[in-house]
Amino acid sequence: MNTALADPGMLSLAAGFTDTATLPARAVGDAVAALVGGEGPVEFLQYGANRGRERLRRQLAARTAALDGPGAAVADPDLTIIGNGSQQLLHLAISVLADPGDIVLVERPTYFVFMEMLGGLGVEPMGLPARPDGALDLPGCEQMISALGASARRGRVKALYLMSYFGNPSGISRTEAEKIALAGMLERAGLIVPVLEDAAYRDLGFAGTWPARSVLALDAYRAFPRLYLGTLTKPFATGLKIGYAHATERGWFDRMCWLKGHEDFGSANFPQAILEAVIESGALERHIAGLRATYAAKMHALDAALEAGGLRALGWDWARPEGGLYLWLRAPDGIDTDGEGPFWRACMHERVLYVPGSLCLAAPAERRFVRLSFGVLAGDALAGAAARFCRAAASMAPT
Amino acid sequence: MNTALADPGMLSLAAGFTDTATLPARAVGDAVAALVGGEGPVEFLQYGANRGRERLRRQLAARTAALDGPGAAVADPDLTIIGNGSQQLLHLAISVLADPGDIVLVERPTYFVFMEMLGGLGVEPMGLPARPDGALDLPGCEQMISALGASARRGRVKALYLMSYFGNPSGISRTEAEKIALAGMLERAGLIVPVLEDAAYRDLGFAGTWPARSVLALDAYRAFPRLYLGTLTKPFATGLKIGYAHATERGWFDRMCWLKGHEDFGSANFPQAILEAVIESGALERHIAGLRATYAAKMHALDAALEAGGLRALGWDWARPEGGLYLWLRAPDGIDTDGEGPFWRACMHERVLYVPGSLCLAAPAERRFVRLSFGVLAGDALAGAAARFCRAAASMAPT
Repeated sequence: MNTALADPGMLSLAAGFTDTATLPARAVGDAVAALVGGEGPVEFLQYGANRGRERLRRQLAARTAALDGPGAAVADPDLTIIGNGSQQLLHLAISVLADPGDIVLVERPTYFVFMEMLGGLGVEPMGLPARPDGALDLPGCEQMISALGASARRGRVKALYLMSYFGNPSGISRTEAEKIALAGMLERAGLIVPVLEDAAYRDLGFAGTWPARSVLALDAYRAFPRLYLGTLTKPFATGLKIGYAHATERGWFDRMCWLKGHEDFGSANFPQAILEAVIESGALERHIAGLRATYAAKMHALDAALEAGGLRALGWDWARPEGGLYLWLRAPDGIDTDGEGPFWRACMHERVLYVPGSLCLAAPAERRFVRLSFGVLAGDALAGAAARFCRAAASMAPT
Repeated sequence: MNTALADPGMLSLAAGFTDTATLPARAVGDAVAALVGGEGPVEFLQYGANRGRERLRRQLAARTAALDGPGAAVADPDLTIIGNGSQQLLHLAISVLADPGDIVLVERPTYFVFMEMLGGLGVEPMGLPARPDGALDLPGCEQMISALGASARRGRVKALYLMSYFGNPSGISRTEAEKIALAGMLERAGLIVPVLEDAAYRDLGFAGTWPARSVLALDAYRAFPRLYLGTLTKPFATGLKIGYAHATERGWFDRMCWLKGHEDFGSANFPQAILEAVIESGALERHIAGLRATYAAKMHALDAALEAGGLRALGWDWARPEGGLYLWLRAPDGIDTDGEGPFWRACMHERVLYVPGSLCLAAPAERRFVRLSFGVLAGDALAGAAARFCRAAASMAPT
């Protein structure tokens, strides 16, 4: 793998980075020039607060409330915390909720970095059964939970993690009906556990906002402690590394703040001040509008290149997502997509990288999926990577 | 305490913040303008690496090596990690070294936020005996360690934490002879434990660099795994929140990187790119030269105001530090400086805040010390705060 990463001729459809060409240098430059040229004290280069800047917390809470629509007084600036990307907030959230041996319910597939983090904390991900189209298999979920019975193992379920907007890697979004049905099923089963809704890609819907409110706004989740996680990395600049979370429960939130106080006593103040200015000026929303068009075009380009490369005829299948940065592909019978396996080696031979799907799946992890990202590459490189991937797939087909 | 902090008329000699008036707005503005106006790709707004930017790691390693003088090939960029302030790196370092119930040796007094962090991890600080002038009481240290004997408790000593340049709160720096004698004593006692040298204030010597090499460069520490921690917050901008550490041992370093990968997979890239430019242009060293003069003047102003307020005549004692941001005061017999005690209340009445010394002391924590910072306040406010402190002290004196 390290050899592959060191090969300058390798094309990567693996990394979940954003497209460097889209990064908002001018908006950041303008914001910094305004800060530096301003009349006020240079507080933006001073230490900030452990929870994050108050004005930014207010802006972010208002933004989340607006996404959830009128009447939803849901995201509270006083229960909002800013972190080093939403990754830090996920780590804080799970660190204070779960002990080694505990269980977190996740979707199938789910964000593989989150699963690695659970592994680092000794926490086990348990996958909620899904239908072939990616929707939750609610009867299957109910059966799984019921099978836990009243055992000690059931008591170890400490949280539910959902990526319900253009998820990584599935690209799938959850409908309100699906989220409400899940809450109802959990409540009937007496499994009222904290819910983490990771909305990292919510801003990256190709046709605009996905029409489902967050768990913050849904009555069905009233009994559940909730943490809604958002980020300004993917929709603006990963290099500013600012994520945020809105909590509904003071106790959980305070424990996260306490731990963050020990870990770093607050994320860098200057990037937060830049983002305040970027939100205030409208530059954030303008940037997101542009990103949506860019990533929609790149998704279509990758999809078209895979079609043109004959991948469907080889038995591969995938859906076109309505947002996000990823395609989630199912290989035909007999193809094992795991790292270092024959298909992986065929891709290495073609010099194209992907993320093996088993990394995104709680046990039992099927080895027939692939995550491809259209985040980083563009134009000829994106089409070329797709062609390489198709050639690798073709080389595996029975002759 | 919260009431006190909410009082706008309160003058704080407590906070360890830097002086906002000194913050380098122009240098940061120039660096950002150059980055944004450059010809290259906008990689500075992209995700960075988990360990930090390579060029910055090289610059920082070269800078530390230069401070340690010729011939000292000591700080390795490949064993350098960048964090959200050095606080994150301290937290990572201890998290991977120590379990609850373990012990870390610290100076008396030591950095109170570090002790709080140890408490959060369930780790016990054990104070190395000090002489009245602040130097290590080496026979006392030896006796303490020997008293641990071969007990299980001795096996729980997992690290030594030293703040050997203009320490917080003591203002004291360690001589090479003192550091070497400490290493010799530990080695004779068979206590070869990882050493964390926190050099947060090394750049803030009023008359220049303190003439003692770091533990990285001292032969006496060759047998000890070492982590040298530095920061660009105090000597440049706290709002960029960039600290760094150089390790000597690959295993410890890799475990820290692994944990950082789970916590946030890398500190914000943009502040690091700014600091690269600031170091490259010489703006960092120019800024530090100015800061030294500023803080020297502020230390003298606070010292003079306390003298003028008659504090010595009331039985208080303190040394004038040669760097850093703090005065460490010893109260006369009979004064208890702890929070909410009579002296604290007298200070609240005068509307001046300080840090109770017992927070900076491992058990047994004498309650007769005070930390005053000349970091934040300046001019009339600094003199006024000192006058208030002296009035509070005078109000406690027997009439």
